[in-house]
Amino acid sequence: MSLTPSNVQLDAARFIKERVRTVENWPQPGVRFRDITTILQDRRALRMLIDLFVQRYIDEDVDVIAGMDARGFIIGPILAYELSLGFVPIRKKGKLPYRTLSQSYDLEYGSATVEIHEDACKAGDRVVIVDDLVATGGTMMAGKILLERLGAQVVEAAAIIDLPDLGGSKLLRDNGVPLYTVCEFGGH
Amino acid sequence: MSLTPSNVQLDAARFIKERVRTVENWPQPGVRFRDITTILQDRRALRMLIDLFVQRYIDEDVDVIAGMDARGFIIGPILAYELSLGFVPIRKKGKLPYRTLSQSYDLEYGSATVEIHEDACKAGDRVVIVDDLVATGGTMMAGKILLERLGAQVVEAAAIIDLPDLGGSKLLRDNGVPLYTVCEFGGH
Repeated sequence: MSLTPSNVQLDAARFIKERVRTVENWPQPGVRFRDITTILQDRRALRMLIDLFVQRYIDEDVDVIAGMDARGFIIGPILAYELSLGFVPIRKKGKLPYRTLSQSYDLEYGSATVEIHEDACKAGDRVVIVDDLVATGGTMMAGKILLERLGAQVVEAAAIIDLPDLGGSKLLRDNGVPLYTVCEFGGH
Repeated sequence: MSLTPSNVQLDAARFIKERVRTVENWPQPGVRFRDITTILQDRRALRMLIDLFVQRYIDEDVDVIAGMDARGFIIGPILAYELSLGFVPIRKKGKLPYRTLSQSYDLEYGSATVEIHEDACKAGDRVVIVDDLVATGGTMMAGKILLERLGAQVVEAAAIIDLPDLGGSKLLRDNGVPLYTVCEFGGH
Protein backbone atom coordinates (compact mmCIF):
# COMPACT_ATOMS: atom_id res chain seq x y z
CA MET A 1 0.00 0.00 0.00
CA SER A 2 1.38 3.40 -0.91
CA LEU A 3 -1.48 5.76 -0.14
CA THR A 4 -0.71 9.43 0.36
CA PRO A 5 -2.74 11.15 3.08
CA SER A 6 -4.91 14.11 2.05
CA ASN A 7 -4.63 17.50 3.75
CA VAL A 8 -7.85 16.77 5.62
CA GLN A 9 -6.35 13.53 6.92
CA LEU A 10 -3.20 15.36 7.97
CA ASP A 11 -5.34 17.84 9.94
CA ALA A 12 -7.14 14.91 11.60
CA ALA A 13 -3.79 13.32 12.47
CA ARG A 14 -2.62 16.58 14.07
CA PHE A 15 -5.89 16.78 16.06
CA ILE A 16 -5.27 13.26 17.35
CA LYS A 17 -1.58 13.78 18.12
CA GLU A 18 -2.44 16.85 20.21
CA ARG A 19 -4.67 14.64 22.36
CA VAL A 20 -1.97 12.11 23.25
CA ARG A 21 -1.02 12.62 26.91
CA THR A 22 2.66 12.38 27.76
CA VAL A 23 3.31 10.95 31.23
CA GLU A 24 6.87 11.61 32.38
CA ASN A 25 8.92 8.90 34.13
CA TRP A 26 6.41 6.07 33.63
CA PRO A 27 6.67 3.11 33.90
CA GLN A 28 10.23 3.94 34.97
CA PRO A 29 12.45 7.02 35.40
CA GLY A 30 13.55 8.59 32.13
CA VAL A 31 10.66 7.20 30.04
CA ARG A 32 8.10 9.55 28.49
CA PHE A 33 5.00 7.36 28.16
CA ARG A 34 2.56 8.23 25.37
CA ASP A 35 -0.93 7.67 26.77
CA ILE A 36 -3.78 7.15 24.30
CA THR A 37 -6.61 7.04 26.86
CA THR A 38 -7.04 10.79 26.36
CA ILE A 39 -7.88 10.10 22.70
CA LEU A 40 -10.33 7.32 23.54
CA GLN A 41 -12.28 9.31 26.11
CA ASP A 42 -12.79 12.20 23.63
CA ARG A 43 -15.73 11.21 21.43
CA ARG A 44 -14.57 13.35 18.50
CA ALA A 45 -10.98 12.15 18.64
CA LEU A 46 -12.06 8.49 18.85
CA ARG A 47 -14.26 8.84 15.76
CA MET A 48 -11.62 10.67 13.79
CA LEU A 49 -8.93 8.17 14.76
CA ILE A 50 -10.97 5.19 13.60
CA ASP A 51 -12.04 6.97 10.42
CA LEU A 52 -8.39 7.42 9.42
CA PHE A 53 -7.84 3.66 9.67
CA VAL A 54 -11.10 2.90 7.86
CA GLN A 55 -10.20 5.28 5.03
CA ARG A 56 -6.82 3.61 4.68
CA TYR A 57 -8.17 0.07 4.33
CA ILE A 58 -11.64 0.55 2.81
CA ASP A 59 -10.48 -0.28 -0.72
CA GLU A 60 -7.65 -2.68 0.17
CA ASP A 61 -7.68 -6.45 -0.07
CA VAL A 62 -7.82 -7.38 3.63
CA ASP A 63 -9.54 -10.45 5.14
CA VAL A 64 -8.84 -10.24 8.86
CA ILE A 65 -7.87 -7.65 11.49
CA ALA A 66 -5.61 -8.99 14.26
CA GLY A 67 -5.02 -7.06 17.50
CA MET A 68 -2.24 -7.32 20.09
CA ASP A 69 -3.15 -7.78 23.78
CA ALA A 70 -4.36 -5.46 25.31
CA ARG A 71 -4.38 -1.96 23.80
CA GLY A 72 -4.59 -3.41 20.28
CA PHE A 73 -7.97 -4.75 21.37
CA ILE A 74 -9.30 -1.21 21.59
CA ILE A 75 -8.70 -0.09 18.01
CA GLY A 76 -8.61 -3.38 16.08
CA PRO A 77 -12.19 -4.55 16.69
CA ILE A 78 -13.70 -1.20 15.67
CA LEU A 79 -11.79 -1.37 12.43
CA ALA A 80 -12.90 -4.97 11.87
CA TYR A 81 -16.54 -4.04 12.50
CA GLU A 82 -16.42 -1.01 10.20
CA LEU A 83 -14.78 -3.01 7.41
CA SER A 84 -17.10 -6.02 7.99
CA LEU A 85 -14.15 -8.27 8.77
CA GLY A 86 -13.48 -10.73 11.56
CA PHE A 87 -11.24 -9.83 14.51
CA VAL A 88 -8.50 -12.11 15.87
CA PRO A 89 -6.93 -11.44 19.29
CA ILE A 90 -3.22 -12.26 19.77
CA ARG A 91 -2.87 -12.67 23.51
CA LYS A 92 -0.29 -12.91 26.24
CA LYS A 93 0.60 -16.48 27.17
CA GLY A 94 -2.06 -18.47 29.00
CA LYS A 95 -5.06 -16.28 28.14
CA LEU A 96 -6.54 -18.13 25.14
CA PRO A 97 -8.63 -21.19 26.06
CA TYR A 98 -8.46 -23.28 22.88
CA ARG A 99 -5.50 -24.87 21.06
CA THR A 100 -2.82 -22.27 20.41
CA LEU A 101 0.47 -21.54 18.68
CA SER A 102 3.05 -19.67 20.81
CA GLN A 103 5.82 -17.27 19.90
CA SER A 104 8.41 -15.76 22.25
CA TYR A 105 10.24 -12.50 21.71
CA ASP A 106 12.97 -10.56 23.50
CA LEU A 107 12.34 -7.70 25.87
CA GLU A 108 14.97 -5.35 27.28
CA TYR A 109 15.38 -7.81 30.16
CA GLY A 110 14.12 -11.33 29.56
CA SER A 111 11.43 -12.35 27.11
CA ALA A 112 7.66 -12.59 26.66
CA THR A 113 5.35 -14.94 24.80
CA VAL A 114 2.21 -14.30 22.76
CA GLU A 115 -0.31 -16.83 21.47
CA ILE A 116 -2.94 -17.21 18.77
CA HIS A 117 -5.73 -19.75 18.39
CA GLU A 118 -4.81 -22.31 15.75
CA ASP A 119 -8.15 -21.72 13.95
CA ALA A 120 -7.95 -17.92 14.17
CA CYS A 121 -7.45 -17.50 10.45
CA LYS A 122 -6.89 -19.66 7.41
CA ALA A 123 -4.12 -20.09 4.88
CA GLY A 124 -4.03 -17.24 2.39
CA ASP A 125 -5.84 -14.73 4.61
CA ARG A 126 -4.53 -11.18 4.22
CA VAL A 127 -4.16 -9.63 7.67
CA VAL A 128 -3.59 -6.17 9.13
CA ILE A 129 -2.10 -6.30 12.67
CA VAL A 130 -3.12 -3.48 15.01
CA ASP A 131 -1.58 -2.16 18.21
CA ASP A 132 -1.65 1.21 19.94
CA LEU A 133 2.05 2.04 19.63
CA VAL A 134 5.19 0.67 17.98
CA ALA A 135 8.43 0.97 19.95
CA THR A 136 10.97 -1.81 19.33
CA GLY A 137 8.48 -3.72 17.19
CA GLY A 138 9.05 -6.99 19.07
CA THR A 139 5.38 -7.64 19.83
CA MET A 140 4.25 -6.88 16.30
CA MET A 141 6.98 -9.13 14.87
CA ALA A 142 5.88 -11.99 17.13
CA GLY A 143 2.31 -11.48 15.93
CA LYS A 144 3.47 -11.51 12.30
CA ILE A 145 5.32 -14.80 12.81
CA LEU A 146 2.27 -16.42 14.45
CA LEU A 147 0.00 -15.35 11.60
CA GLU A 148 2.49 -16.65 9.02
CA ARG A 149 2.69 -19.98 10.86
CA LEU A 150 -1.07 -20.21 10.19
CA GLY A 151 -0.42 -19.58 6.50
CA ALA A 152 -1.74 -16.02 6.56
CA GLN A 153 0.01 -13.01 5.05
CA VAL A 154 0.52 -9.79 7.01
CA VAL A 155 -0.03 -6.97 4.54
CA GLU A 156 0.50 -4.11 6.98
CA ALA A 157 0.96 -3.25 10.64
CA ALA A 158 -1.10 -0.33 11.95
CA ALA A 159 -0.79 1.68 15.14
CA ILE A 160 -1.72 5.08 16.46
CA ILE A 161 1.82 6.08 17.38
CA ASP A 162 5.28 5.31 16.03
CA LEU A 163 8.40 5.90 18.11
CA PRO A 164 10.83 5.65 15.18
CA ASP A 165 13.95 6.21 17.32
CA LEU A 166 13.32 2.81 18.94
CA GLY A 167 13.63 1.05 15.58
CA GLY A 168 10.36 -0.88 15.40
CA SER A 169 9.11 0.61 12.15
CA LYS A 170 12.47 -0.15 10.48
CA LEU A 171 12.50 -3.71 11.87
CA LEU A 172 9.01 -4.33 10.50
CA ARG A 173 9.82 -2.79 7.11
CA ASP A 174 13.06 -4.83 6.87
CA ASN A 175 10.89 -7.92 7.41
CA GLY A 176 8.44 -7.04 4.66
CA VAL A 177 5.71 -5.45 6.81
CA PRO A 178 5.09 -1.75 6.21
CA LEU A 179 3.86 0.21 9.23
CA TYR A 180 1.04 2.75 9.06
CA THR A 181 0.74 5.13 12.01
CA VAL A 182 -1.29 8.27 12.59
CA CYS A 183 1.51 10.19 14.30
CA GLU A 184 5.01 9.82 15.67
CA PHE A 185 7.08 11.11 18.56
CA GLY A 186 10.86 11.45 18.66
CA GLY A 187 12.90 10.10 21.56
CA HIS A 188 12.07 7.23 23.85
CA MET B 1 -34.13 0.54 30.79
CA SER B 2 -36.84 -2.01 30.18
CA LEU B 3 -36.64 -2.71 26.48
CA THR B 4 -38.14 -5.90 25.13
CA PRO B 5 -36.16 -7.60 22.34
CA SER B 6 -37.89 -8.08 19.01
CA ASN B 7 -38.16 -11.48 17.34
CA VAL B 8 -35.43 -10.43 14.91
CA GLN B 9 -33.16 -9.57 17.84
CA LEU B 10 -33.93 -12.92 19.46
CA ASP B 11 -32.90 -14.67 16.22
CA ALA B 12 -29.68 -12.66 16.19
CA ALA B 13 -29.02 -13.60 19.82
CA ARG B 14 -29.51 -17.28 18.98
CA PHE B 15 -27.11 -16.94 16.01
CA ILE B 16 -24.49 -15.45 18.35
CA LYS B 17 -25.02 -17.98 21.14
CA GLU B 18 -24.49 -20.83 18.66
CA ARG B 19 -21.07 -19.37 17.84
CA VAL B 20 -19.78 -19.36 21.43
CA ARG B 21 -17.18 -22.12 21.77
CA THR B 22 -17.26 -24.16 24.96
CA VAL B 23 -13.81 -25.32 26.08
CA GLU B 24 -14.03 -28.09 28.66
CA ASN B 25 -11.76 -28.10 31.73
CA TRP B 26 -10.22 -24.67 31.16
CA PRO B 27 -8.64 -22.86 32.95
CA GLN B 28 -9.02 -25.73 35.44
CA PRO B 29 -10.66 -29.16 35.65
CA GLY B 30 -14.44 -29.04 35.89
CA VAL B 31 -14.83 -25.57 34.34
CA ARG B 32 -16.63 -25.16 31.01
CA PHE B 33 -15.11 -21.98 29.58
CA ARG B 34 -17.28 -19.92 27.20
CA ASP B 35 -14.96 -18.62 24.48
CA ILE B 36 -16.10 -15.57 22.49
CA THR B 37 -13.18 -15.53 20.02
CA THR B 38 -15.30 -17.67 17.68
CA ILE B 39 -17.84 -14.84 17.54
CA LEU B 40 -15.21 -12.19 16.91
CA GLN B 41 -13.50 -14.02 14.06
CA ASP B 42 -16.84 -14.49 12.23
CA ARG B 43 -17.50 -11.23 10.39
CA ARG B 44 -21.28 -11.70 10.37
CA ALA B 45 -21.49 -12.64 14.04
CA LEU B 46 -19.30 -9.68 15.07
CA ARG B 47 -21.53 -7.23 13.19
CA MET B 48 -24.72 -8.73 14.57
CA LEU B 49 -23.38 -8.77 18.11
CA ILE B 50 -22.43 -5.10 18.03
CA ASP B 51 -25.70 -4.14 16.34
CA LEU B 52 -27.65 -5.66 19.24
CA PHE B 53 -25.80 -3.42 21.70
CA VAL B 54 -26.15 -0.38 19.45
CA GLN B 55 -29.90 -0.97 19.09
CA ARG B 56 -30.24 -1.22 22.86
CA TYR B 57 -28.52 2.10 23.62
CA ILE B 58 -29.15 4.22 20.52
CA ASP B 59 -32.04 6.12 22.13
CA GLU B 60 -30.85 5.99 25.75
CA ASP B 61 -29.26 8.77 27.74
CA VAL B 62 -25.65 7.51 27.93
CA ASP B 63 -22.49 9.68 28.02
CA VAL B 64 -19.62 7.21 28.31
CA ILE B 65 -18.86 3.55 27.60
CA ALA B 66 -16.45 1.92 30.07
CA GLY B 67 -14.78 -1.44 29.37
CA MET B 68 -13.16 -3.95 31.72
CA ASP B 69 -9.60 -5.16 30.99
CA ALA B 70 -9.09 -7.02 28.66
CA ARG B 71 -12.04 -8.65 26.86
CA GLY B 72 -14.28 -5.68 27.64
CA PHE B 73 -11.88 -3.70 25.45
CA ILE B 74 -13.06 -5.66 22.42
CA ILE B 75 -16.77 -4.83 22.53
CA GLY B 76 -16.84 -1.54 24.46
CA PRO B 77 -14.89 0.66 22.03
CA ILE B 78 -16.97 -0.42 19.02
CA LEU B 79 -20.10 0.51 20.90
CA ALA B 80 -18.58 3.86 21.91
CA TYR B 81 -17.59 4.60 18.31
CA GLU B 82 -21.00 3.65 16.91
CA LEU B 83 -22.82 5.76 19.51
CA SER B 84 -20.32 8.66 19.13
CA LEU B 85 -19.32 8.41 22.78
CA GLY B 86 -15.97 8.32 24.51
CA PHE B 87 -14.46 5.06 25.77
CA VAL B 88 -12.90 4.63 29.22
CA PRO B 89 -10.72 1.58 30.01
CA ILE B 90 -10.83 0.15 33.54
CA ARG B 91 -7.56 -1.73 33.85
CA LYS B 92 -5.78 -4.24 36.00
CA LYS B 93 -3.52 -2.66 38.63
CA GLY B 94 -0.36 -0.97 37.33
CA LYS B 95 -1.40 -0.62 33.68
CA LEU B 96 -2.69 2.96 33.59
CA PRO B 97 0.05 5.62 33.39
CA TYR B 98 -1.68 8.69 34.82
CA ARG B 99 -3.17 9.35 38.27
CA THR B 100 -5.64 6.60 39.18
CA LEU B 101 -8.25 5.45 41.67
CA SER B 102 -7.98 1.77 42.73
CA GLN B 103 -10.56 -0.72 43.85
CA SER B 104 -9.94 -4.27 45.08
CA TYR B 105 -12.39 -7.12 44.92
CA ASP B 106 -12.48 -10.73 46.10
CA LEU B 107 -11.70 -13.71 43.91
CA GLU B 108 -12.28 -17.35 44.81
CA TYR B 109 -8.78 -17.37 46.29
CA GLY B 110 -7.27 -14.00 47.14
CA SER B 111 -8.19 -10.67 45.54
CA ALA B 112 -7.55 -8.47 42.51
CA THR B 113 -7.42 -4.73 41.93
CA VAL B 114 -8.67 -2.60 39.05
CA GLU B 115 -7.94 1.06 38.35
CA ILE B 116 -9.39 4.02 36.48
CA HIS B 117 -7.82 7.32 35.50
CA GLU B 118 -9.06 10.07 37.78
CA ASP B 119 -10.04 12.20 34.75
CA ALA B 120 -11.71 9.33 32.87
CA CYS B 121 -15.18 10.80 33.26
CA LYS B 122 -16.84 13.64 35.06
CA ALA B 123 -19.46 13.98 37.76
CA GLY B 124 -22.93 13.27 36.45
CA ASP B 125 -21.82 11.18 33.46
CA ARG B 126 -24.15 8.30 32.69
CA VAL B 127 -22.07 5.20 31.98
CA VAL B 128 -22.62 1.72 30.54
CA ILE B 129 -19.94 -0.77 31.70
CA VAL B 130 -19.05 -3.50 29.21
CA ASP B 131 -17.35 -6.88 29.64
CA ASP B 132 -17.48 -10.13 27.69
CA LEU B 133 -19.05 -12.31 30.38
CA VAL B 134 -20.56 -11.96 33.85
CA ALA B 135 -19.83 -14.77 36.32
CA THR B 136 -19.66 -13.70 39.98
CA GLY B 137 -19.95 -10.03 39.00
CA GLY B 138 -16.94 -9.02 41.12
CA THR B 139 -15.09 -7.22 38.34
CA MET B 140 -18.17 -5.32 37.16
CA MET B 141 -18.98 -4.29 40.74
CA ALA B 142 -15.43 -2.98 41.21
CA GLY B 143 -15.82 -1.00 37.99
CA LYS B 144 -19.14 0.42 39.18
CA ILE B 145 -17.60 1.55 42.49
CA LEU B 146 -14.70 3.27 40.68
CA LEU B 147 -17.06 5.13 38.35
CA GLU B 148 -19.21 6.22 41.28
CA ARG B 149 -16.14 7.48 43.13
CA LEU B 150 -15.66 9.79 40.11
CA GLY B 151 -19.26 10.99 40.53
CA ALA B 152 -20.56 9.11 37.51
CA GLN B 153 -23.70 6.96 37.46
CA VAL B 154 -23.70 3.42 36.07
CA VAL B 155 -26.99 3.04 34.24
CA GLU B 156 -26.44 -0.52 33.03
CA ALA B 157 -23.86 -3.28 32.76
CA ALA B 158 -23.63 -5.05 29.39
CA ALA B 159 -21.96 -8.30 28.41
CA ILE B 160 -22.24 -10.94 25.74
CA ILE B 161 -22.81 -13.83 28.15
CA ASP B 162 -24.44 -14.20 31.56
CA LEU B 163 -23.73 -17.21 33.77
CA PRO B 164 -26.69 -16.63 36.11
CA ASP B 165 -25.92 -19.64 38.33
CA LEU B 166 -22.77 -17.84 39.51
CA GLY B 167 -24.84 -14.97 40.90
CA GLY B 168 -23.28 -11.97 39.17
CA SER B 169 -26.43 -10.68 37.51
CA LYS B 170 -28.30 -10.86 40.83
CA LEU B 171 -25.45 -9.12 42.68
CA LEU B 172 -25.44 -6.29 40.14
CA ARG B 173 -29.23 -5.96 40.19
CA ASP B 174 -29.27 -5.93 44.02
CA ASN B 175 -26.81 -3.03 43.81
CA GLY B 176 -28.94 -1.01 41.42
CA VAL B 177 -27.21 -1.97 38.16
CA PRO B 178 -29.34 -3.93 35.68
CA LEU B 179 -27.41 -6.33 33.45
CA TYR B 180 -28.06 -6.69 29.72
CA THR B 181 -26.63 -9.77 28.04
CA VAL B 182 -27.13 -11.31 24.62
CA CYS B 183 -27.30 -14.91 25.86
CA GLU B 184 -26.82 -17.03 28.95
CA PHE B 185 -25.51 -20.47 29.84
CA GLY B 186 -26.52 -22.56 32.86
CA GLY B 187 -23.92 -24.15 35.14
CA HIS B 188 -20.42 -22.96 35.85
